[in-house]
Order: sequence, then C-alpha cells, then structure tokens
Amino acid sequence: MLINGKHYRTIWLSEDKKAAEIIDQRYLPFEFIIEKITSATEMAICIKDMHLRGAPLIGAAGAYGIYLAALEAFSLKISDYKQHIKNCALFLEKTRPTAVNLKWAIDRVMYELDKVETVEQKVATAYRISEQIADEDAENCRMMGVNGVALIEEIYKKKGETVNVLTHCNAGALACVDYGTATSVMYEAKRKKIPIHVWVDETRPRNQGKITNWELEQDGIDNTVICDNTGGYLMSKGMVDIVIVGTDRTTRNGDVANKIGTYLKALAANDNGIPFYVALPSSTYDDTLETGDSIPIETRDEGEVLTIDGNFHGRIETVQLYPYKTKAVNYGFDITPARLVTGFITEKGIFKPEDLSKNLGKK
Amino acid sequence: MLINGKHYRTIWLSEDKKAAEIIDQRYLPFEFIIEKITSATEMAICIKDMHLRGAPLIGAAGAYGIYLAALEAFSLKISDYKQHIKNCALFLEKTRPTAVNLKWAIDRVMYELDKVETVEQKVATAYRISEQIADEDAENCRMMGVNGVALIEEIYKKKGETVNVLTHCNAGALACVDYGTATSVMYEAKRKKIPIHVWVDETRPRNQGKITNWELEQDGIDNTVICDNTGGYLMSKGMVDIVIVGTDRTTRNGDVANKIGTYLKALAANDNGIPFYVALPSSTYDDTLETGDSIPIETRDEGEVLTIDGNFHGRIETVQLYPYKTKAVNYGFDITPARLVTGFITEKGIFKPEDLSKNLGKK
Repeated sequence: MLINGKHYRTIWLSEDKKAAEIIDQRYLPFEFIIEKITSATEMAICIKDMHLRGAPLIGAAGAYGIYLAALEAFSLKISDYKQHIKNCALFLEKTRPTAVNLKWAIDRVMYELDKVETVEQKVATAYRISEQIADEDAENCRMMGVNGVALIEEIYKKKGETVNVLTHCNAGALACVDYGTATSVMYEAKRKKIPIHVWVDETRPRNQGKITNWELEQDGIDNTVICDNTGGYLMSKGMVDIVIVGTDRTTRNGDVANKIGTYLKALAANDNGIPFYVALPSSTYDDTLETGDSIPIETRDEGEVLTIDGNFHGRIETVQLYPYKTKAVNYGFDITPARLVTGFITEKGIFKPEDLSKNLGKK
Repeated sequence: MLINGKHYRTIWLSEDKKAAEIIDQRYLPFEFIIEKITSATEMAICIKDMHLRGAPLIGAAGAYGIYLAALEAFSLKISDYKQHIKNCALFLEKTRPTAVNLKWAIDRVMYELDKVETVEQKVATAYRISEQIADEDAENCRMMGVNGVALIEEIYKKKGETVNVLTHCNAGALACVDYGTATSVMYEAKRKKIPIHVWVDETRPRNQGKITNWELEQDGIDNTVICDNTGGYLMSKGMVDIVIVGTDRTTRNGDVANKIGTYLKALAANDNGIPFYVALPSSTYDDTLETGDSIPIETRDEGEVLTIDGNFHGRIETVQLYPYKTKAVNYGFDITPARLVTGFITEKGIFKPEDLSKNLGKK
C-alpha cells in the first residue's frame, strides 16, 4: 500500500525482530501513527480495541502475537513456556469472535509449534510461520486483484465509460497485510487504466469508510463517501455497476458474515439486478461450518453507537450523539445468505457459492 | 406531545398572533429551544435549514408562512400586497422539494386568499386556514394512531409478549403538529397498555433518530437506538415484528418517498416476511403523480455527511468526520416501491397500496 508515495504493510516486525509494528488505524485519516507492540497482551488489546482490524489482518496479528508470546517466554525465562504460549493463544483468539482468520492463523502457528520442543525452537518457528502468513496474505490479496479485475473489465467493455463500484466498510489494504481484498480489484483496475469510481459506504458505527476513502485517495482512485442509507437509492437509479465487499467468515454453503449492513446492500443489489461479489481469501473460508447461522456475531460496546470521533479544531475528539440514558445495541456483523451472492473473488479464481467447497475446501 | 410533562405542539402562533413559534429541533435532544418567527423569509430559512422538518409539519409551517406574509403586507403597508404574498408563497414552496405537504398546504391557503380582496381580509383568511391546517393535522395524526394500533394489538394477541416495532427517521410528533404519524401508533399502543419496544434507526446523515428517541423517552416508551446498518440483522433474527415508517410523498400507485434508507428496510422486511407499514396522512398522498419515478429527490449539502453535531463538554459542536478534500453526496430521500409496502395507516383507515386511490384520491 502506498502512503504518501512510500510502500507500507499494515503490520511488520521491527528491525531487531523484538517487536511488531502496526499502523494504528484509530487516528486515520487525520493522523498517521505507527505503534510498536512488544508483548502478546498488548497485541490482544490492539486487536480488541481495533488499533488494527479486518479479518485477514487480525489473522496475521494473531500469528505475530504468538511470536511475541514465545519471545517473552524466552527473554523472561518463563519455565513453563509451553503453558505461557498456550495461554496467550487462548486470549488472543478470544479478542474478536466473528472473523475466522484469527483462529485459523493462531491454530496454524500453534500446530507448527507443537512439532518443536525448546523455547528457542518455538521462537524460531513462530517467527517463520507468522512471516509466512503475512507474506501469503499479501500475495493472495494481490492475486484477488488480478483475478477480480476481469469483472470490472467486462463491465467497462459493455458500458464504455467509468465503472461505478460500491463497497461497504474497509476491505482494503488496511484490513489485510497489503493490497486489500475488495480494494485489490480496484487497484488492479487502476493499474490497467480502466476508469473506475468507488461509492464508499461510511459504515457506521465506526465509519471505516473514512479509511477506505483515505486508502483510495492515496492511490488516486476517484471515490465518493455516502451514508449507509444511500446505496439502495443509487442502485435503483442505475448509478452502481457492481458491489464488491469483503468478508470476515464465509461458511461451506457460501453464507457471508461481513460488517453489519452488508446484507442490506446485497438485498438492494439483488432487487436491481446488480452483481454482488465477495472478495474472499481462502483463509477466510470456514468449511467447518455448514451455514451462516452457526457464525458467532460479535456484540460490541454501545458507546460506539452513542458517540463518534471527529476532528475538532485539529484534535480528534469524541462527541456524544445521544443523552447519557439512551440505550443502544451494536452488532458488529450480519449474514448475507449465499442466494444473494453472485460470486466470490478468491486468490484461486472467481467461484459461484455452490463451487466454493470444491475449490477452497480444506475438509 | 408531552415535553417534561407539559403538552406542546411543534408550531403555534404567539399570544398576540404577530409571530409563529416553533420548537427548534436542531438542538434536541440536548437543548429545548423555542424559536419566534416574525416573517415569511425567516420561516423559509427555518424550513430550508431544518429548524423544523417532517412532511406534515413543513406543510403547516408553509401555511403559517403565508399568514406571516399577509401580516407583513398589512403592517408594512405594502401597496402591491397580492404580489408580495405570491412571492412569499413561491420561495416558501421552493425550500424543500420532496415532501408534497408544503405545496399542498400553501396551495390551500392561496386558493382561499384568492377569494378575498383586501389585505385585512387576506390576513384574516390566512390566519383561519393555517390554524385549520394545523388542527386538522393534529386530529389526523391522532386518528392514525387510533386506526394503526389494531396492527400492534393483533401481533400482541398472537405473540403474547412485547411487540418490537422498527422505525426509520422521525415520523413523530416533531415531524407533525402533534402526535406524529408512525409514533402516533406507538403512543396509542402505550395508552392501551400493549407492551411495545421500538428499534430507532439513527438515520444518518442528520440522525433524526435522536429526536425519535427523545420523543419516545418523553412518553415513557421503551426504545433502543441502532445504526442504520443494523435493521436487516435484527429482522433476520426475528427481533422485529413490524416496521412502521412515515412518508414525505406517496404517489397514486402507492410508491413511497421517505427518508433515504427506507427502501433498504422495506427490502429486509420483505425478505423476512415482516409487515412493512407506512403511516400516511391524506395530505401526503399525491395522486397527481402516477409513480415514484416522478418525485423530485432533494439533494442536500455534502457537509451533512462529512461532519456531525454532538455534545462536547456540554456544548453542541460540529466535528469533521473526513478530511476537507473528501467528496460526498447527500440524497435526502429514496423511493420504496408499492410492491414492498404491506399497507398504509391513514386517518381514514388501513389500506393496501392498490386501494389508496379510491379511499384518499382527490382527482
């Protein structure tokens, strides 16, 4: 991802390999802050409090968290280092329940750690596997762009003018290690000089649209921010050619858990005959669950609904939108049933819901 | 409407009848401010800048605006008083294009004014008709509650526990002269001791949900504020029994213009077999238009999307959600096609879309 013209990943190890560094997304787009994380506990807090977010990225962050756990077991000379690493894995995994990548990445590191005995070996293995997960994620995201751009190209060939893409939340480089899932397709379209314009859902309550807007601006992709209420109207007026969103977990049958509100956009796309695509890295495909009904939906703090952060005279401040006694609920995700999904853009190709299992299945 | 236990309308004439007074809704729920309006121009600004809003209320406000125009023609001894009143009617009508009530109410006053000659007669007639419009609106809203409560009662009889109603925007007393349209049904349910709970869409960009929340709190009706993204999930989980919204204009065939985002909730209700009702006073039914395609959709300032007002240390402040160069669009309304509407709650009864014309038609 380009930031002020320089290439960044969203997470990486410090030069001395003793810490992880991340882009702290809480202050974007107003401030670009890099945070240094030196322990598994700190990493868990960063995931929980959304210093970083996005299914693929929290997967990589979980893996690096295990590396930090092994590292602290080694440097603090913790005698029961195996138990320490296991405990860390447990609380890292519990930080966010909906995205499957977190569990998937932690399980993958822990599986490899089980094969080695000494704490030094565990450090070395956790290092190798977490770097591998990050590298693979970046490469998979790049490939999703390469595969998905065919959809944009096809629309452009028919239409002969700017292709309007609608996206919800941030399925961008900032949700991954690099490139993004849905945005990777947009970056690739730009690279191929296909004119596109992106409708960016603001995505209440946390307004991740502001980081999608910021990301696209960094890459020079034309985009317009809209309230989450607006997409249906735009679709009914022919102002959207394709919807591309990310996912936090997709089940065997093709049901899609994604940021709350995705289901409403899928309904509108369906009602207006607009293709609705989900960018799905295989690490987010969970074929251990048959349908979306089994996905745990995270309930977050009601404060995220009742207050909002914004720039007030150059400082990020929190303002209160409702009186103190107001009740709110804050479900983080909803389920878009497979019947509303036109197809999945993956690193291995574009598949219909019914073909996911034979192409991405791990069972 | 009860405010701190005292009965208020949203608009009324001052004791000396020389000004209109309104509840300035921009500061709710944090501050309760009454604004005095002494000219037609001031009234136009109040409507345009949404010191007051809601289709029925801006109808009444338009009528009172004509009264103020006649009054200033009289007191300033404007020789061409007829032209002055006509000019005022014209700019009052242009403040908000989507809601039909504004035009309807202004036309109604102007029609009666045409029948009298002197400026004194025009003042007296404008006074009489604008008070009549306000009184009728209050009574019609009350009757919509009386008629609509049957729907809640029926669900309660089947379910035997709290009825969950979802509403979008503020179709409340604050959108009308009194009682509200959608909320009138809720107030009536409460009066009849039917246990209800209301899911209140926050309704970005202007968060009219905060005044719906405030209104319901004043009346002691249990309610929970949700982001606009959340309703689809709640419906898919069986947590909504009925959706009731207002409308700014409904056409001959039953297409409904209402606050942007209404269409998305109608799609979700339809997808989950949940009844979707529109509270429609006959003054909002426009049988001069065949379908919703002909309704002008208001585009408002993008600043309403890019910034938000909130309480910051006891003062209402505006914070910036996006960097200055960010583009946004702000369509105020969308069209819910008649096929997604279960029925209309009106002051004359509950009707299916196809029966509107014979029951409310003016043609």
